[in-house]
Amino acid sequence: MVEGVNFIGKTTSCEGAQTFRAYDPQKNKELSEQFSIATRQEVGQSLQKAQEAFLAYRHVSGHRKADFLDQIAEEIMGLGNELVERASAESGLPTGRIEGERGRACNQLKMFADLLREGSWVDARIDKGEPDVRRMLVPLGPVVVFGASNFPLAFSTAGGDTASALAAGCPVVVKGHESHPGTNELVSGAIIKAAQKTEMPDGVFSSLNGGPEVGGDLVRHPLTKAVGFTGSFSGGKAIFDMAQQRDEPIPVYAEMGSVNPVFLLDDKLAASAEELAEQYAGSVNLGVGQFCTNPGLIIAKEGSDLDTFKKVLAEKLNDNPTGCMLSPKISKSYKQQRTRMFEQSGIEVVAAPEEESQTRGAGAVAATTAEYFISNEKLGEEVFGPFTLVVSCSDDAQMHQVANSLEGQLTVTFMGEDEELADRKLLIDTCREKAGRIIFNGVPTGVRVCQAMHHGGPFPATIDSKFTSVGTTAIERFVRPVAFQDCPEILLPDELKDDNPLGIHRIVDGNLTR
Amino acid sequence: MVEGVNFIGKTTSCEGAQTFRAYDPQKNKELSEQFSIATRQEVGQSLQKAQEAFLAYRHVSGHRKADFLDQIAEEIMGLGNELVERASAESGLPTGRIEGERGRACNQLKMFADLLREGSWVDARIDKGEPDVRRMLVPLGPVVVFGASNFPLAFSTAGGDTASALAAGCPVVVKGHESHPGTNELVSGAIIKAAQKTEMPDGVFSSLNGGPEVGGDLVRHPLTKAVGFTGSFSGGKAIFDMAQQRDEPIPVYAEMGSVNPVFLLDDKLAASAEELAEQYAGSVNLGVGQFCTNPGLIIAKEGSDLDTFKKVLAEKLNDNPTGCMLSPKISKSYKQQRTRMFEQSGIEVVAAPEEESQTRGAGAVAATTAEYFISNEKLGEEVFGPFTLVVSCSDDAQMHQVANSLEGQLTVTFMGEDEELADRKLLIDTCREKAGRIIFNGVPTGVRVCQAMHHGGPFPATIDSKFTSVGTTAIERFVRPVAFQDCPEILLPDELKDDNPLGIHRIVDGNLTR
Repeated sequence: MVEGVNFIGKTTSCEGAQTFRAYDPQKNKELSEQFSIATRQEVGQSLQKAQEAFLAYRHVSGHRKADFLDQIAEEIMGLGNELVERASAESGLPTGRIEGERGRACNQLKMFADLLREGSWVDARIDKGEPDVRRMLVPLGPVVVFGASNFPLAFSTAGGDTASALAAGCPVVVKGHESHPGTNELVSGAIIKAAQKTEMPDGVFSSLNGGPEVGGDLVRHPLTKAVGFTGSFSGGKAIFDMAQQRDEPIPVYAEMGSVNPVFLLDDKLAASAEELAEQYAGSVNLGVGQFCTNPGLIIAKEGSDLDTFKKVLAEKLNDNPTGCMLSPKISKSYKQQRTRMFEQSGIEVVAAPEEESQTRGAGAVAATTAEYFISNEKLGEEVFGPFTLVVSCSDDAQMHQVANSLEGQLTVTFMGEDEELADRKLLIDTCREKAGRIIFNGVPTGVRVCQAMHHGGPFPATIDSKFTSVGTTAIERFVRPVAFQDCPEILLPDELKDDNPLGIHRIVDGNLTR
Repeated sequence: MVEGVNFIGKTTSCEGAQTFRAYDPQKNKELSEQFSIATRQEVGQSLQKAQEAFLAYRHVSGHRKADFLDQIAEEIMGLGNELVERASAESGLPTGRIEGERGRACNQLKMFADLLREGSWVDARIDKGEPDVRRMLVPLGPVVVFGASNFPLAFSTAGGDTASALAAGCPVVVKGHESHPGTNELVSGAIIKAAQKTEMPDGVFSSLNGGPEVGGDLVRHPLTKAVGFTGSFSGGKAIFDMAQQRDEPIPVYAEMGSVNPVFLLDDKLAASAEELAEQYAGSVNLGVGQFCTNPGLIIAKEGSDLDTFKKVLAEKLNDNPTGCMLSPKISKSYKQQRTRMFEQSGIEVVAAPEEESQTRGAGAVAATTAEYFISNEKLGEEVFGPFTLVVSCSDDAQMHQVANSLEGQLTVTFMGEDEELADRKLLIDTCREKAGRIIFNGVPTGVRVCQAMHHGGPFPATIDSKFTSVGTTAIERFVRPVAFQDCPEILLPDELKDDNPLGIHRIVDGNLTR
């Protein structure tokens, strides 16, 4: 049952006079429930409670935090079809995709639970001698997480940011995304229930409804110690600027836009232009193009192979029916950005949808040459939706120039035969400086959740290229080291005690031991 | 021989018309050499050359970078007495201290060389399966390092920032501190010589003379990817703000002010008030108080034990002769800040020097009560020099209030018997949120260079509490992760190859292996 409430810790709250409703983009109508927009007072209460909870939560053992995370996953699964249907209604995403995303969100929670039970993530280091110095990672304090429009489950209320912050030992205050407040409420209720069942301190999790104003109040609140965000460049950059202008600047981990360039190398393109086109039509269209890793830029040498690729890509995209987009706003924005792209000089329209209703979108392809691309930075901007721009180069040198002109990206992909990949080491090196992940002979969509994943990249893909929002190392965003010098054994955290009661990996006098 | 030049890679350069001279605070006179202030063009040339060097340097093996760092240490030692005398003349620090600092700087270089030879610092992670994902840390690109006034060797031209950035694989452009340009030139020459002997790419190191204008040009240059700074809050914060306002914001690792609070607990104070006073007089006076870890705040329960402590502290400081400070500017500033502190309401002057010449300073002590301290934030500000403020509390609760009122600090120290330390866990916990290092029964001055050291702390002690400027983990400031997905073996860096040719520790499919 969705009631339109905020959660301040375990207490529901509806102080504000302002409300809003969710919108079902598939049915093209507003949903009935009214959601209470949090007041500035409620923002303050949630952070005050988070800070109080932090004093206890920072000392909760890894095993108990792991039980909490596992319990969240269990409570989310326990919501059953109500959650799946609500998330589908609020996002326009098919129930199958929502079920998959739910699995991903639960797996992330369990992955962090495993990380906590193993325990070595605290990067404990001990140097005996005089003085005796021991350090480990400790949580930063209350973290604000912004829900993401395109992942109502895996990057929102109980998504990777929340999971990694809670794992780190930081209480979380979520600002639910305005598009899916019901989903947010259901998942928030599940987290609160899990917190109560596993006896976590009240205030370890809060969840507020609202727009940029509530978001701004959360970011500016002096008790907030870090922010997690996934969304547009303009949104992420605005939050970052606000956070740096505070009396105490705080880190903002914003995963923003990316066009995820794909280089089709000559031999591969010659050998399989049609297969590549088919593979990439699927990737461009996946989730109606609403992934941060959507391949929005394809770069190849001009010629008949590329002509074939473009032709088949256009056919496959034209064959595909329109898809429901996340919201009327995103659908409108997709069409505007696409039209603006089509209107740039030097742009050839390769595939354009004939007709799309208000909330639907279909795949589109434009093409241009390297000269036009390099001279007009608008051509490198993201069109959020199922769109890709094909850039043709006259030779290897020009392809390298295109690579040099790229901004920071989440991913860069190379489609090539082994031999030609080895020959293009310099091109790959150039792209390595531009990206957080280099993919070979695959598609950028689909981000495996694992220890080695890096989902981030140089600005403007993210604010801080050192951190990832996917994978176990996402926990590093919400911790800082503390050193204890000549600390009596009784006051040392278990992680740093002489006899290593937790059995974790530690660097002792320079040697990794367990 | 000091010539007053800038180094743009291995090329000396003196394009600008403006010059300045160094000042000998011991002899109270200007030194003869004129130093050329770098022009904006020279700033651009140094970063352009750094970027070109980066393309090669990023691929230089750990072993070769280690040889480079070791060679720098050797070249610095090879400068012999000329360096020691010059650094002493430009800083007012005695030659014995300079020799000690030189040893520290060389040991830091060798510590990073060892880290590189061992190789596991790249945090390699491999997840086999579909897709196969492997990640490691790679260098950010050109780094700008600001020399620090109070450590002409260990935190300046070849100090910890430069050593860790070069170890990470980042070329460095140093802006030498204006107080010791001759020292900077000698050390820069040593680094250039080491780079040539070990065949590093030209541009891996540059060094420019100048003030805030040159610093600003370096920070704003689009090729600069990160900044290292040790100095005042106003200097560090200005650089940070400038860096965040760039089109591409970049990280600024600024280690700034700290008053390094010391809590004297009851039993310890009762048992050894005089010994504590003697110990702390030594720490307050060390290096004429010009350390970032100088104990500027001492907190204890009011009473006869504290009276004894204050009395003996004052005596010991008064017994001590004045010391030569780093520069007339710093000496003047010390006296101004001290006077301002003495003039605050509720301040008792416990010890004040009778007479100090223009460039000298002597130890001073003020005292106040917890009420005054908590209600006047000026009393928590750093007085850079041999000054400390003693705050008396009426009871444990008030001592906790003082702890709660503290800003972020590099260190917090507890002087206590084992039993009372165990009883004050909550106080220690509160201080843990405020500091980067917690010291028990010692003095904050003296920062051991080791794996477990954390020399950083919550804002305003540093900009980013996640990073340290001392110890091996300082290298983490200048790297970011990159993931390789389904990468052909031939293109994988050695660190990520199947057979682990470097023999480093890696997390493979979730298990730490070698």
